[in-house]
Amino acid sequence: MAAEIDPTTPDQITDTTTVDGLRAALDGRWKDVRDELRIALDRADLLPDPALDLGPSRAKILAEMKELASQNFASAGFRTEHGGTGDVGRAIVGIEMLGYADLSLMVKSGVQWGLFGGAVENLGTARHHERYVADLIDLKLLGSFGMTETGHGSNVQALETTATYDPNTGEFVIDSTTPLARKDYIGGAGEHATVSAVFAQLITGGPGEEPTNRGVHCFFVPVRGDDGEDLPGVTTSDCGYKGGLRGVDNGRFVFNEVRIPRENLLNRYADVAADGTYSSPIESDNRRFFTMLGTLIRGRVSVGATAGAAARKALALAIRYALVRKQFDAPDGTYEITILDYRAHQRKLLPLLAKSYAIAFAQNELTAELHDVQSLEADTVDPHRQRLLESWAAGLKAYGSGHASHTINVCREACGGAGYLDENQLSILRGDIDVFTTFEGDNTVLTQLVGKELLGSYSDEMRGLNAAGWVRFVAGMVGDVVAEKTAVRQVVQTLLDSSDEDPDKSELTNRGTQIRLFRNREDHLRRTCAQRLRKAADADDPFTVFNNTQDHLLKAATAHTERLVLESFIEAIDKCDSRSAAELLGKVCDLFVYSALEADLSWFLMHRHVSVERAKAIRRGVNDLCEQLRPHARTLVDAFGIPEALLTAPMLEHG
Amino acid sequence: MAAEIDPTTPDQITDTTTVDGLRAALDGRWKDVRDELRIALDRADLLPDPALDLGPSRAKILAEMKELASQNFASAGFRTEHGGTGDVGRAIVGIEMLGYADLSLMVKSGVQWGLFGGAVENLGTARHHERYVADLIDLKLLGSFGMTETGHGSNVQALETTATYDPNTGEFVIDSTTPLARKDYIGGAGEHATVSAVFAQLITGGPGEEPTNRGVHCFFVPVRGDDGEDLPGVTTSDCGYKGGLRGVDNGRFVFNEVRIPRENLLNRYADVAADGTYSSPIESDNRRFFTMLGTLIRGRVSVGATAGAAARKALALAIRYALVRKQFDAPDGTYEITILDYRAHQRKLLPLLAKSYAIAFAQNELTAELHDVQSLEADTVDPHRQRLLESWAAGLKAYGSGHASHTINVCREACGGAGYLDENQLSILRGDIDVFTTFEGDNTVLTQLVGKELLGSYSDEMRGLNAAGWVRFVAGMVGDVVAEKTAVRQVVQTLLDSSDEDPDKSELTNRGTQIRLFRNREDHLRRTCAQRLRKAADADDPFTVFNNTQDHLLKAATAHTERLVLESFIEAIDKCDSRSAAELLGKVCDLFVYSALEADLSWFLMHRHVSVERAKAIRRGVNDLCEQLRPHARTLVDAFGIPEALLTAPMLEHG
Repeated sequence: MAAEIDPTTPDQITDTTTVDGLRAALDGRWKDVRDELRIALDRADLLPDPALDLGPSRAKILAEMKELASQNFASAGFRTEHGGTGDVGRAIVGIEMLGYADLSLMVKSGVQWGLFGGAVENLGTARHHERYVADLIDLKLLGSFGMTETGHGSNVQALETTATYDPNTGEFVIDSTTPLARKDYIGGAGEHATVSAVFAQLITGGPGEEPTNRGVHCFFVPVRGDDGEDLPGVTTSDCGYKGGLRGVDNGRFVFNEVRIPRENLLNRYADVAADGTYSSPIESDNRRFFTMLGTLIRGRVSVGATAGAAARKALALAIRYALVRKQFDAPDGTYEITILDYRAHQRKLLPLLAKSYAIAFAQNELTAELHDVQSLEADTVDPHRQRLLESWAAGLKAYGSGHASHTINVCREACGGAGYLDENQLSILRGDIDVFTTFEGDNTVLTQLVGKELLGSYSDEMRGLNAAGWVRFVAGMVGDVVAEKTAVRQVVQTLLDSSDEDPDKSELTNRGTQIRLFRNREDHLRRTCAQRLRKAADADDPFTVFNNTQDHLLKAATAHTERLVLESFIEAIDKCDSRSAAELLGKVCDLFVYSALEADLSWFLMHRHVSVERAKAIRRGVNDLCEQLRPHARTLVDAFGIPEALLTAPMLEHG
Repeated sequence: MAAEIDPTTPDQITDTTTVDGLRAALDGRWKDVRDELRIALDRADLLPDPALDLGPSRAKILAEMKELASQNFASAGFRTEHGGTGDVGRAIVGIEMLGYADLSLMVKSGVQWGLFGGAVENLGTARHHERYVADLIDLKLLGSFGMTETGHGSNVQALETTATYDPNTGEFVIDSTTPLARKDYIGGAGEHATVSAVFAQLITGGPGEEPTNRGVHCFFVPVRGDDGEDLPGVTTSDCGYKGGLRGVDNGRFVFNEVRIPRENLLNRYADVAADGTYSSPIESDNRRFFTMLGTLIRGRVSVGATAGAAARKALALAIRYALVRKQFDAPDGTYEITILDYRAHQRKLLPLLAKSYAIAFAQNELTAELHDVQSLEADTVDPHRQRLLESWAAGLKAYGSGHASHTINVCREACGGAGYLDENQLSILRGDIDVFTTFEGDNTVLTQLVGKELLGSYSDEMRGLNAAGWVRFVAGMVGDVVAEKTAVRQVVQTLLDSSDEDPDKSELTNRGTQIRLFRNREDHLRRTCAQRLRKAADADDPFTVFNNTQDHLLKAATAHTERLVLESFIEAIDKCDSRSAAELLGKVCDLFVYSALEADLSWFLMHRHVSVERAKAIRRGVNDLCEQLRPHARTLVDAFGIPEALLTAPMLEHG
């Protein structure tokens, strides 16, 4: 019944000029490392092999890491004085690119070089850098990041492992005080790690002082001997089979009075003298804790970046499939319809594609900002800038990994039965990406953090307050909390100036109008949320106030992040050097905006930010933009520049 | 930091009276088989074992099926005259219950007894029943259902396998004419099946006639010998690793001129005489095709039912976890907050719980209707009733499996890192459920089918028309297509009578108002969709008209299904014998309604079916109802009556 020729799809051919322009825009500042890795990773043997059981899957990933190490992959993440090449952006983009091959490879690399390595680099001092950095770069030292506990995932300040200083021996005693103090889900703990950067409550007193809890600090703790056996007092175990990431050996540590030398405290922000005297350049326990955590956000940024890459890969697979797959007769019965020609299919995939572009540009900016901040001498970083960076990293990680998880699910379903076979990769991606919404910060908890920062104007005093304390703090704030303290970008300001202050009076296709709609939503949500909290200033039960406002707060945070994402997109278009690429990006940006508005249309209507007529125009606009972008679908996914061997999928051969 | 006692959660204790009442309501007409299987399945060894590779996983499932067979599990699905006990409802509920243990067990059982067995039972005649039914019930004969092809999943009428009758030998020649004609994703084809019910284009001519394609028919085709080797002309292969369902041996068949005796045509609806003469009691090829397919909907109903069970199991796990898991300090710092006390967590889980109740009641009605229809003598079934049944099965399968997939994803994420470990089951459920949105009909295609039926008033002539033909048909329909032909249930009529015709003038808590909102949405969408199609009657390009209306049509279909689901829920409350259960169900139904309205609020606002004030009340209502149901969360999941051993999950021990 199906004839060979289908006149509706003359567009499988990529528009190479536009692809090049788009790719340059997407590649951004670390284009070089992307291009290098495009060549290095163009090997189908790097794809996950579902036939391998846990042990061989882990061995495969470790072998691939060793290959990377031999090519000096990891040195960018470490400062030159510690033996690295000091290029944070390059390190993150490199990790992100690994995600195109195998998310297990990315995660295990991220644990070793980003989390464990980052802890040694950023929380340690010269004695640690000299002894460990070179070895951990080239994998002579396999580490892990012992933060999460069975009882405490999101609430790190409440973790229960203790490190009690014993002045008689000059050692810390690491102890899992309760069953819930067990370190859990730790990458590397299952099999390969011989050491761990363990977070624990430091308890010490100086001469004549009662030993006191000084809060969470990080310790370098050997866990396995050269023979792979647990060291005395350490009990490791394996998390076993998971929803994905088979190549990552997640596991657990239980510490039973494990003794480590005093020097194993990673002592950049606090130290314990031989006699037990505690000292720190940062007086406030709270500020010290958040300063330490703040140095570790590279992991969170990498996770967000890689989630973006995974979503792009899924879209490349699903859209290429939708361009070869045909189903049901065309009107005259001579050929079958290419499934991407169906509106329902366009509506499934193309808005997600547009959002993926938006997130990619935002991620590039975040990576660059992290690079710039971490390239400064620590003491010269403006604390407010660091604060904004952390909030942006939290928001984009949640926004981007939620998008990735959703997108990969939709892509799997859009490829039907073929999408369910591991040979076509989407089902593997789907299992792997799932936990990206959880690790490096649960998405709901992170979004809430962004909201709390936003409402609390990034104020130092409010950090670490519990919900009730935070409500009291915000309710008591003087002045207008709605004022955004960040500078408005030039390009955004220009666009705002060229549009009417009342968005209703300006065309919806006007970029300035679009920005206003996003900004007005954010301001409205922030203002009304603050009002609710203020009204509750005298409430008997501030926790209830917090809880009743929680959905409002989360919504304000997401609106904030989405506005930042839009502005990144606009900046990227502005900077795009290729005229044809910039023109196409304009339409992609429109689709991102229209579908974001559509997804939240009830809010815009309820709060009269858009009229019923405009709401209907938004719906129609999504359809129209899908139709306009349909002929460019292949161009848009080719522009990602995913190595062709990593897109191996038999379903693409026959549709 | 965490103290032992948390005063906010005194409600872990189940209210057993209410549980009993709820369970009776949920169990419905086949309570007996549910209770029997609750005992039989209360064994943790029935849970999937992620450590088993493909072969052992499949062997485990086959062994479990043999155990079921030895307990006469499958005979209910077959008529007494064929050696069964003739209780279709029991068969479906039995299959559904298997889903609580292992979805692989459900799927492989469903393929053997529902799809393959159903094809023999419903498309075969005495010669097939006598030879095969007893053997397939007790697994002496392992079959498969050879419908889907690599090139054609959703469009069964277009499949390309041929069965050409050769009058010289009295045989059919089965042939995979093109690479895309390969049978694909077939459960059992990978390893165990020795025969297959193969769907193919029947080509035959009588004496002096040119051989003609008579459309798709079903053939009994041996595929493997007793030694497990492929029979001559048959090439089987294995689909290998998948996103889940590891215990199901999906595979492929390629037929190269495979000869089978004429008697192997399953000839209830058509036959071929020795000389090649084709005959059928149903003259129209199209009607015959749809009549045959219509007898096979049991598979679709079972898949929908089981998806519902899987969603309930995920909710039971996630809600029990949310009742033991604590995170972050309460106001006075003496204990930590149980996570189900957070509004954000309630909002994640409780609306899905309410929708699961709604779907369970709707599914029970569908199962009962299928039972009643299939218990009649075939010739006495009212064709319109059969048509409504098929549409209802398609709609509820799409609605329910989409809900299940989404719910299990949310539940996994709501359990954080613990949810990602296979030992806690959610990640396995997540992988297994995914394809339920695809097999037995892609959800988008099924929803579209419901829409086409609805707009075409279930008219016989429109079946099998392509998109353009269907548009022409609907555009040319005389009279008001919006009239719903089904009778209004008594309980619904009574409620409608007790509410104002204008929903705005009646309280939103009034059940009659709620029904009106759902009904008005459906009518509005159906009417406006029909108008768009009618206007296009003279369009040059009816496919474009169809395509531009596709999202509208899908929305009308979903609104229709959701209205039916609500009315099933209302009927179930009406019939509920326990006062405390009925009262609680009333609140659950409210939450279902409010959250369904909230999910589609932009539509209700844009089309002025709710005012802005009412929209805000709906948002608040969801929050209030979550709070009201929070103390009953454990009661509500205990009422599902999932065997306790099947809820084994270490995370429930320590939170």
